[in-house]
Amino acid sequence: MKNHTINYAQIPMQSVGPFKLTGDLITDNLMVPMATYETPLWPSVARGARTTAHAGGIRVTLIDERMTRSILLQADHAGEALRCMRALKAQQPDMQSIVNQTSRFAKLIDTHFQIIGNLIYLRFEFTTGDASGHNMVTQAADTLFPWILQQFPTLSYVSISGNFCTDKKVSAVNGILGRGKNVVCETIISAKLCQRFLKTTPQALVDLHIKKDLIGSIVSGGLRTANAHVANMLLGFYLATGQDAANIVEGSQAINHAEVTPEGHLYFSTTLPNLIVGTVGNGKGLDFVQQNLEQLGCNDPQAKPGDNARRLACIAGATALCGELSLLAAQTNPGELMSAHLKLERSHRD
Amino acid sequence: MKNHTINYAQIPMQSVGPFKLTGDLITDNLMVPMATYETPLWPSVARGARTTAHAGGIRVTLIDERMTRSILLQADHAGEALRCMRALKAQQPDMQSIVNQTSRFAKLIDTHFQIIGNLIYLRFEFTTGDASGHNMVTQAADTLFPWILQQFPTLSYVSISGNFCTDKKVSAVNGILGRGKNVVCETIISAKLCQRFLKTTPQALVDLHIKKDLIGSIVSGGLRTANAHVANMLLGFYLATGQDAANIVEGSQAINHAEVTPEGHLYFSTTLPNLIVGTVGNGKGLDFVQQNLEQLGCNDPQAKPGDNARRLACIAGATALCGELSLLAAQTNPGELMSAHLKLERSHRD
Amino acid sequence: MKNHTINYAQIPMQSVGPFKLTGDLITDNLMVPMATYETPLWPSVARGARTTAHAGGIRVTLIDERMTRSILLQADHAGEALRCMRALKAQQPDMQSIVNQTSRFAKLIDTHFQIIGNLIYLRFEFTTGDASGHNMVTQAADTLFPWILQQFPTLSYVSISGNFCTDKKVSAVNGILGRGKNVVCETIISAKLCQRFLKTTPQALVDLHIKKDLIGSIVSGGLRTANAHVANMLLGFYLATGQDAANIVEGSQAINHAEVTPEGHLYFSTTLPNLIVGTVGNGKGLDFVQQNLEQLGCNDPQAKPGDNARRLACIAGATALCGELSLLAAQTNPGELMSAHLKLERSHRD
Amino acid sequence: MKNHTINYAQIPMQSVGPFKLTGDLITDNLMVPMATYETPLWPSVARGARTTAHAGGIRVTLIDERMTRSILLQADHAGEALRCMRALKAQQPDMQSIVNQTSRFAKLIDTHFQIIGNLIYLRFEFTTGDASGHNMVTQAADTLFPWILQQFPTLSYVSISGNFCTDKKVSAVNGILGRGKNVVCETIISAKLCQRFLKTTPQALVDLHIKKDLIGSIVSGGLRTANAHVANMLLGFYLATGQDAANIVEGSQAINHAEVTPEGHLYFSTTLPNLIVGTVGNGKGLDFVQQNLEQLGCNDPQAKPGDNARRLACIAGATALCGELSLLAAQTNPGELMSAHLKLERSHRD
Repeated sequence: MKNHTINYAQIPMQSVGPFKLTGDLITDNLMVPMATYETPLWPSVARGARTTAHAGGIRVTLIDERMTRSILLQADHAGEALRCMRALKAQQPDMQSIVNQTSRFAKLIDTHFQIIGNLIYLRFEFTTGDASGHNMVTQAADTLFPWILQQFPTLSYVSISGNFCTDKKVSAVNGILGRGKNVVCETIISAKLCQRFLKTTPQALVDLHIKKDLIGSIVSGGLRTANAHVANMLLGFYLATGQDAANIVEGSQAINHAEVTPEGHLYFSTTLPNLIVGTVGNGKGLDFVQQNLEQLGCNDPQAKPGDNARRLACIAGATALCGELSLLAAQTNPGELMSAHLKLERSHRD
Repeated sequence: MKNHTINYAQIPMQSVGPFKLTGDLITDNLMVPMATYETPLWPSVARGARTTAHAGGIRVTLIDERMTRSILLQADHAGEALRCMRALKAQQPDMQSIVNQTSRFAKLIDTHFQIIGNLIYLRFEFTTGDASGHNMVTQAADTLFPWILQQFPTLSYVSISGNFCTDKKVSAVNGILGRGKNVVCETIISAKLCQRFLKTTPQALVDLHIKKDLIGSIVSGGLRTANAHVANMLLGFYLATGQDAANIVEGSQAINHAEVTPEGHLYFSTTLPNLIVGTVGNGKGLDFVQQNLEQLGCNDPQAKPGDNARRLACIAGATALCGELSLLAAQTNPGELMSAHLKLERSHRD
Repeated sequence: MKNHTINYAQIPMQSVGPFKLTGDLITDNLMVPMATYETPLWPSVARGARTTAHAGGIRVTLIDERMTRSILLQADHAGEALRCMRALKAQQPDMQSIVNQTSRFAKLIDTHFQIIGNLIYLRFEFTTGDASGHNMVTQAADTLFPWILQQFPTLSYVSISGNFCTDKKVSAVNGILGRGKNVVCETIISAKLCQRFLKTTPQALVDLHIKKDLIGSIVSGGLRTANAHVANMLLGFYLATGQDAANIVEGSQAINHAEVTPEGHLYFSTTLPNLIVGTVGNGKGLDFVQQNLEQLGCNDPQAKPGDNARRLACIAGATALCGELSLLAAQTNPGELMSAHLKLERSHRD
Repeated sequence: MKNHTINYAQIPMQSVGPFKLTGDLITDNLMVPMATYETPLWPSVARGARTTAHAGGIRVTLIDERMTRSILLQADHAGEALRCMRALKAQQPDMQSIVNQTSRFAKLIDTHFQIIGNLIYLRFEFTTGDASGHNMVTQAADTLFPWILQQFPTLSYVSISGNFCTDKKVSAVNGILGRGKNVVCETIISAKLCQRFLKTTPQALVDLHIKKDLIGSIVSGGLRTANAHVANMLLGFYLATGQDAANIVEGSQAINHAEVTPEGHLYFSTTLPNLIVGTVGNGKGLDFVQQNLEQLGCNDPQAKPGDNARRLACIAGATALCGELSLLAAQTNPGELMSAHLKLERSHRD
């Protein structure tokens, strides 16, 4: 049947860079592949990469990592719900034993719950090795759930996912309690390099950042978001590296912070609290994905479990920073954005 | 240079259905292409399509459409900012004349502004024919901006985009003032069909929807979002039809509403206020995209400007509804989600 | 019966100032009464008033005013809902005639609706003279509702209030579509006066404002809020002037904006989009409230309808700005906040 | 000087009830005082109290309690920030020793941090005995801060409060990490009592709750809020009991949950995650406050530290539930709300 034939959507892909990364987890120069229909993104990110490489690179710090699934239960009343949750807290080792049966990588590192009336939203938080972990945590939750119901017969099943996880939906919980890799990317660029590569000044860029990223996002009723177009870079990077790109929804809730240093340089950072990436799992077996992971140094079979994925998150974050830097710089100059777009699209169509 | 070679990311793609759509804009049966690394999505959406087709189809209503760009200006003080904005309101015909010079499709339909201290966030709202309109509205804004500065010499340029647009970032403004196509998709499914296709009851599904989509999203600190995984369906649909898939960020802020009808049927709806889709522009020229638009009946050269894009938005919304329906149904049954995933992934790997 | 005796809660009240206000609606010097249990608030606000008065005063601009009520209706499906809402839009004059029967002050200035599935959230927006207008708009909505149901027999009643108003609840809609008085308060303070009165520098205060009000609020998952403690000032002002102080919930969603001017001065502003205040109605008949309104010049029987309330909103906003300025200045200096608190509380207890 | 005279704002106050409370912390019948200009609130809350008392009472569960202060620091870069925060985590006992010097009640129970670029938002979480704790935690933070800077010389002071606390501002962090008393109030009311006291049915009330509290709040761009008018009840209760009523901002972010039980009864609950209340501290020394605390049984000198305040939080929550129940019931009936208002206001004015 025609409708069961698997074809392929061919998304234009290019490697841009070179990027220079520094920090505790990664020090390297590399070209980063991005797949997108919006091809003007490539030279824009490349400009950010070139600028930061000249300025000494992008320092990346991994703050946290965890993957989550929240189950949804019901009790007779909140008092009983609380009693069960308190008892469960004490049984974390038992829960870990159960999780061990489902995966040798999943490790339960924390739980959080919310009681709303007689409902319990119970959030499991795991590390998941080199996998982004969507399926691993669902499987773990699926195995924990019947065991919990057995331990606490007054509780009953409502849902394997209660949206307090939360997967691919805007939330505050992901930023506050963590989900995915939390990565901070920072760079310092001299006024001279700002002028040379970005055609702008540290002060102009900081000023725009405050009025657009910070105040503009607040005015628009944003939620834990303060950036220009992080979603674009994540989409391109995720598609090129076989990630579940629907996770750009939470990934795009990123926060820029910029200031002029006492020396007159530009300090620019992009903090991405929710990068959901992996180097194994769905999508990773495709040839071009393997090649791209290889190119990024994220396919090292000798690496400790999780190291490949952590490195990948660092690169994803740096890519986002470069796109932010370049677009914000362009927007400090009236007319530059549109003329750049027109020029690039014309050249790509030729 | 290797890094300037354009390659392609090949994302697995399949057409699922058949869908049955009804409503003022579209009455048709069709197969819908989706490109994704998360291939279990296909049979899941297909189940929703099959169920709703048997139940009489999905009624789609287009509530609104507009594409936006917000420029950012500065005045000496708020009093002056207000004076200028009031004067500008009266000059909408002049602004339209200017917009006409940039595109024969862009039509300025409304403006909104916010004054924060001495800053002005001025949001232009356009219809843009069959284009999603990102570039069209940037070009229009780029042409309006110098004219505004000329009319109001006390104002000065801050940015061509002030994040009050807002593009590819979570916000409340897009839902409240509109951005993209606002589409409501509805279906009514008898208890019998619920059981047959979805292995659940109307009451169980409604109950889960309330506790997960509504309360769960509120608990997670969501913002104008109440769904299970709309981002997944939009990503697959957007990639298959050449859309800028970074717009799933706002697109995923969708709201389900379900209830048991007096007759005991399931009323289920998905409202998607921010579908940013087009049938012309970046990405649309690729062969497979053309084929897919053709297959969806969204490439009709005889159609009135905008009709192809409106039809496309209706189909996107219906696709989202089917995925929602199917996943929520699965989650009413303990263990079903995981076992379905395992089975499907195994079969796809074979 | 004891439980039906009306007593009084006696909240400590003091007038602070003098304030100096300028702008299109109000140019005056005055003392502002505030009622609060948190008495250290008085000297803190007074410091802000003193500082700004020396600096030339606070310029207040009223951007907008409206009071709202959203009714909630249901249709068979979204298509029918849309048809009715479009027809209703054309009948605004008829609606105004009906509103006229309920009050000679209520004027229907706009309507907005949201369609979610088969539900309609219809927001009426009125001006309400000198009343804050809670009851006036409920009465208007209560009279409009049966008329609407009569015009559109396919619609049915769900609720006289659908939370899309929205009264005394955090939201984005109030800031974006407007509710209450939208007031911008601005001041410019020289570096010398900053040092003399606020013990800080323009740069230090701006820096703190960015990191605390802007980034800090974004990090905490705030929504259209960027201030330090606006709720405190509004509470004190609302209680002293007979307002429904539960409206500080939306009132506190205020946004500060500050920068160092090219001359090295401090530009500081507080924008309060949702001040719900009136000079007539519940609470206004009490003797001390009358005296306070008199003292503020907001009880002028000769004034045009609405002028007294607009003046009151301007003063409320300026009061908030003074408290913001003073607290932020204190927080730029390690240890100052606590020692000030301790000193003040000790002196008040003596 | 006239402006230093302390007067009093006299807010009308009445005790309503009787309330019947059950649960782990409190089982009692009592009259609850509320101070408000909006006097129709009294009979409305009283109706809710009467209804729930007949139905067996309101079960109150205290889920959590903590008071918070977030300090704001800066490092050279995120890597250094992370290093310091990890080291600090290990020094919680040292921090507790320091806190002990500032109060014999403050106990540091947890810390959370967010790193945004080179900024650190460090949230201290304390229990504070019977005090609401605003000053206690500021004093503790003020003492911890220099010690932290001494331990980690690479960090520097930005602010004693970084808005990640967060006090009197809308946020998601307070609901997710906790601030104040987290209280769940629940009641079950038979269809017969619903009809007798509330003139409605369980199904009608649940239906309205879903469409107004849940969907309506989502549509309005609410944040962790799903109620009708919790702010009203908290304001009245806070003013009558000497609380800092500006805390209704976070207190009003309450979530109702209701359903029809299998027996056809109404299950109704109000969850209030952020009740900031105390029985000692500012405002508590006033005579009428002492009397009210006495009347509520929250002034027991024999009680364990914290017990009086916990009891007070339970009563605050129950009061909110009663107001919610009564207003929602009224709104299920077209016209009832307005006619009740008119009747009550007329009777109070007579």
